[in-house]
Amino acid sequence: MIKVGIVGGTGYTGVELLRLLAAHPQVELRVITSRADAGTCVSQMFPSLRGYVDLVFTHPDAAHLEQCDVVFFATPNGIAMQQTRALLDAGVRVIDLAADFRIKDIAEWEKWYGMSHACPDLVAEAVYGLPEVNRDKIRAARIVANPGCYPTAVQLGFIPLLEAGLVETGHLIADVKSGVSGAGRKAEIGALFAEASDNFKAYGVAGHRHLPEIKQGLSNVCGKPVGLTFVPHLTPMIRGIHATLYAQIKTQVDLQALFEQRYANEAFVDVLPAGSHPETRSVRGSNICRIALHRPQDGDTVVILSVIDNLVKGAAGQAVQNLNIMFGLPETTALGVLPLLP
Amino acid sequence: MIKVGIVGGTGYTGVELLRLLAAHPQVELRVITSRADAGTCVSQMFPSLRGYVDLVFTHPDAAHLEQCDVVFFATPNGIAMQQTRALLDAGVRVIDLAADFRIKDIAEWEKWYGMSHACPDLVAEAVYGLPEVNRDKIRAARIVANPGCYPTAVQLGFIPLLEAGLVETGHLIADVKSGVSGAGRKAEIGALFAEASDNFKAYGVAGHRHLPEIKQGLSNVCGKPVGLTFVPHLTPMIRGIHATLYAQIKTQVDLQALFEQRYANEAFVDVLPAGSHPETRSVRGSNICRIALHRPQDGDTVVILSVIDNLVKGAAGQAVQNLNIMFGLPETTALGVLPLLP
Amino acid sequence: MIKVGIVGGTGYTGVELLRLLAAHPQVELRVITSRADAGTCVSQMFPSLRGYVDLVFTHPDAAHLEQCDVVFFATPNGIAMQQTRALLDAGVRVIDLAADFRIKDIAEWEKWYGMSHACPDLVAEAVYGLPEVNRDKIRAARIVANPGCYPTAVQLGFIPLLEAGLVETGHLIADVKSGVSGAGRKAEIGALFAEASDNFKAYGVAGHRHLPEIKQGLSNVCGKPVGLTFVPHLTPMIRGIHATLYAQIKTQVDLQALFEQRYANEAFVDVLPAGSHPETRSVRGSNICRIALHRPQDGDTVVILSVIDNLVKGAAGQAVQNLNIMFGLPETTALGVLPLLP
Amino acid sequence: MIKVGIVGGTGYTGVELLRLLAAHPQVELRVITSRADAGTCVSQMFPSLRGYVDLVFTHPDAAHLEQCDVVFFATPNGIAMQQTRALLDAGVRVIDLAADFRIKDIAEWEKWYGMSHACPDLVAEAVYGLPEVNRDKIRAARIVANPGCYPTAVQLGFIPLLEAGLVETGHLIADVKSGVSGAGRKAEIGALFAEASDNFKAYGVAGHRHLPEIKQGLSNVCGKPVGLTFVPHLTPMIRGIHATLYAQIKTQVDLQALFEQRYANEAFVDVLPAGSHPETRSVRGSNICRIALHRPQDGDTVVILSVIDNLVKGAAGQAVQNLNIMFGLPETTALGVLPLLP
Repeated sequence: MIKVGIVGGTGYTGVELLRLLAAHPQVELRVITSRADAGTCVSQMFPSLRGYVDLVFTHPDAAHLEQCDVVFFATPNGIAMQQTRALLDAGVRVIDLAADFRIKDIAEWEKWYGMSHACPDLVAEAVYGLPEVNRDKIRAARIVANPGCYPTAVQLGFIPLLEAGLVETGHLIADVKSGVSGAGRKAEIGALFAEASDNFKAYGVAGHRHLPEIKQGLSNVCGKPVGLTFVPHLTPMIRGIHATLYAQIKTQVDLQALFEQRYANEAFVDVLPAGSHPETRSVRGSNICRIALHRPQDGDTVVILSVIDNLVKGAAGQAVQNLNIMFGLPETTALGVLPLLP
Repeated sequence: MIKVGIVGGTGYTGVELLRLLAAHPQVELRVITSRADAGTCVSQMFPSLRGYVDLVFTHPDAAHLEQCDVVFFATPNGIAMQQTRALLDAGVRVIDLAADFRIKDIAEWEKWYGMSHACPDLVAEAVYGLPEVNRDKIRAARIVANPGCYPTAVQLGFIPLLEAGLVETGHLIADVKSGVSGAGRKAEIGALFAEASDNFKAYGVAGHRHLPEIKQGLSNVCGKPVGLTFVPHLTPMIRGIHATLYAQIKTQVDLQALFEQRYANEAFVDVLPAGSHPETRSVRGSNICRIALHRPQDGDTVVILSVIDNLVKGAAGQAVQNLNIMFGLPETTALGVLPLLP
Repeated sequence: MIKVGIVGGTGYTGVELLRLLAAHPQVELRVITSRADAGTCVSQMFPSLRGYVDLVFTHPDAAHLEQCDVVFFATPNGIAMQQTRALLDAGVRVIDLAADFRIKDIAEWEKWYGMSHACPDLVAEAVYGLPEVNRDKIRAARIVANPGCYPTAVQLGFIPLLEAGLVETGHLIADVKSGVSGAGRKAEIGALFAEASDNFKAYGVAGHRHLPEIKQGLSNVCGKPVGLTFVPHLTPMIRGIHATLYAQIKTQVDLQALFEQRYANEAFVDVLPAGSHPETRSVRGSNICRIALHRPQDGDTVVILSVIDNLVKGAAGQAVQNLNIMFGLPETTALGVLPLLP
Repeated sequence: MIKVGIVGGTGYTGVELLRLLAAHPQVELRVITSRADAGTCVSQMFPSLRGYVDLVFTHPDAAHLEQCDVVFFATPNGIAMQQTRALLDAGVRVIDLAADFRIKDIAEWEKWYGMSHACPDLVAEAVYGLPEVNRDKIRAARIVANPGCYPTAVQLGFIPLLEAGLVETGHLIADVKSGVSGAGRKAEIGALFAEASDNFKAYGVAGHRHLPEIKQGLSNVCGKPVGLTFVPHLTPMIRGIHATLYAQIKTQVDLQALFEQRYANEAFVDVLPAGSHPETRSVRGSNICRIALHRPQDGDTVVILSVIDNLVKGAAGQAVQNLNIMFGLPETTALGVLPLLP
């Protein structure tokens, strides 16, 4: 059994990790920490877990995380980088669901996240945990930087085109819509039901923290910097991300075949039949990314539609997928739960 | 392997049966019928099932249901009663998710459902499939009448009080709120998003078809007729039923202990700690009924709160629970999926 | 022109007062205060008001409220009672949308609201601002205690029955459902979209602050204490309250005629035809209360359905109605906006 | 008083016309037709109108529309073109909220709408009713083709850029999100609450009927054909359209000043301060279009955000605005209702 610890378990990625790991046959949930809620039963805060998780939130100081095989950080940005070195030294592997290890360019990271990085050398070592790109490196990684939700949906949609060198890379557009759980389980007025319901808006058009992460990933694939306009939107649903991606195609190609081949062996990327319109609910609660391809009016603008559940493939599910890879388990272990529809 | 057929698989109870049965280790899904959609891939209509269910909808005439061990009817009322006798004669057991076999008083059934009953003798034989009451009879049943969604939530909330003879039975009140999926996957204006969203209403106050079903169940428990006012409401959520039940208590008793003892051995009834307020989302996608007990201001009015997922414990999940009982399997088989929260 | 000040304008009752008063032909909006947001344009916080309201939030210390004819308190509980005496001394009339002046029994108020009352004598003077009961007293009042949202919906539904002495008053039941805006524009986790959406729950079953307010109002009508079980629920919609009221009737009577007569001259109470089911959206954005009456199966349990918009008839609209009465204007002034449906 | 008739009043644009016209001081609502619901009180179907509209739906054959000054068609496509000539002959002016008169290229119209056009000559005469472009022609028009909801939001966002010749016109992108009321009040499974709630999807990517309408409008402004990729999406809210528009800018310019000047005299177009993100709810129930401009990372991609209420500025409100222009009234008559927020 893999001994697992979770740091910061009171947010949505935390409870989602618990939902998935509680059913993982090779995982022993050892400890989950919360500074504010130490002593509280997990199932009191999240009654959905009654009967499945009998842990109590532990104060970080009493967590003995060094006795785990792997620790997930489901914390705000800036926490994991403080604790990762000690864990590595104790032989513990780390999967960070926050952004601390995602951006290789430290100055860029510090600009977007507004703090000094505590361990640039570990950023260099960390592996970006997008299995469809980095599976082999993840296997051996001590630190996995679990991708952001927007970056997962956008990269999986663009990658086959960029790998094949088929599109203009200077003016990519990602118009992406997220459910409100993407804002986290934080008491903020903008995420109130009476504010976010029956309403739609863009935000962060001038610049969003996921922009440099997406650009880094896409540029790595291309071998050169890409130009990307990324506009995130808030849509009144709990879970789900829908990315609508636009690119100018340079040469004729069978897009459908290209994507199907690229993802033929991927358990969690489903290329839909030509002409499809994936719905976010078709992946609700599951680790699947569904993608559909369009070339309207046979023009040179390609439209790619890519949907994920932001809390699963966009966070906790991808983290479990990375866990499975790191520990040599079948990649789908504990990730076979069917989407909940309706 | 149990060979399973489903009649009428294009509604919400149908797709929910598929979600649960696709993961059932002892079930072989043989056939699913649809008159209107014969020839269509199930996963085309319900993309959430892509990769899990590769059946095609079969025309009823070509379904060979007699080769199944058990057939689920996920049809409108009045269909199962036409086909059940032939299935029984072929040695097939039947679980009807509609109302055809729920009401023992044929005249009462015909009044509420507006049609003549095709097989009153089979109604007499059928077992009402509420496992917490009829487990032993279900085990041997050839026909199981799967309870309605409202009746499940209301009966599980009232039964311990009535069994113990603690309350006035002449003026029970059930104020119950349902998500919109309870109306089924039918094209009706009242169930449109733009009609049902951001809105709340009662309906059927003069009389709802689930009233006689609930009264029958409660009266059986009491051994005498009960008086019940049942007011259903439509609330803007997809899944979930929340029953708020009121009764006048006659004698002092430890309600919490009473309910905990009554349901101590029930896998799918969870009595919450005193003072709790169960949320429908705490059972979303699962077969659990959560119940909490209140006696406000220590008065003689008891308030019981009971929540279920209308499509699971209120329909498809309870049907699978009945399947498990009928075929001697552990009752929780394929029903261990954790609730999806948020 | 009536010179109007608003204290505490950044909540939902505040913005709703602005929406209504901006179109009031006899009102001059002089000042709106906010300690935290002083200096911010009102229309920056609430872009819906761009072009209609050009006020800037003023710090309370600089508000010169004594120059107003009337001041609305759209503040948390406990603020108005600190400032009302000085305003009265300056000849300013006060309409408090919070609870400071609602409960005549000071000890009861202090128990439910958890603070000492600053001015019990002014509570004695204050008029409870339910126009359908207290219109004449409101006309001359210096202080109007604007009713709570739940109390408005419940009292308007019960009053005709109680006035006529037709029902048992010992076991009244009010099962009431509220939209999430009722929780106010406060950053609280329970009111987040990802918590409150696609979910339904009861809360405060053991006791809610509106219970003593409702009991006081109903007892006044009866001339003796009533017994009431009040269960509030949170439903995933922005606006709206739906009260489902239950009472045991003692004598036969034409309920429909009774209610129609009682409210024949009320501009804002609409008794629907027999057999109706009022929807909350039918009053969205308007000051109307719609009521429908049922006696299921001709039994002795009466069911009254009563809907309001919690922010209008349950708060700001009723406050404007009181303003109109206090200043001798037609009661419907600025309250003629049609409900927004869908 | 202007004598007004409405053909087809049982859909969402019909009830919205009634909401607005009921408060119009110069309008006398003479007749509203419905073939299916003739004889039904309007306020029975739409209880929100109780007390404001006392019309009964009239059968089209008995409507005497020729006695009106103006007739609104709130019908499915293909109806208005059958009846317009007779009305014109009787001296009645026509405002068609459907698509019959929007597209000048008859062949193009017939391709997208799948029927033969009944009166191409009247299409040539009809004026496209976007007041911000065609105000003078509307004034004298006998037939106004009221624009579609998507076309209104998209054109108002692009027009200033195109008029000024500032952007590449070959690769415009309009990524647009609509509330579900845009699908109309028709019983269709895809628009059910349980299908459309908590879900997000694109649709019609291969081609949507509003594409030729938008291209026609933009091409007229440019004086040459434009290239446009238009992707509509369905978002789980009742009302509202949010257009996110992308264009490549050719020369440096003060976008903010450009838009502010272009719309300086427009009562219903509000250019927000630089850096803003308009929310759909900020225009809920009102005729306003709010626009914000962005140039992320100072690149050459311009992002324009444009929001309207699809039922008001996108349908009934714009129709009333056209009525006001046609009859020489102040353009804002009956359109001053403040947006409803929250």
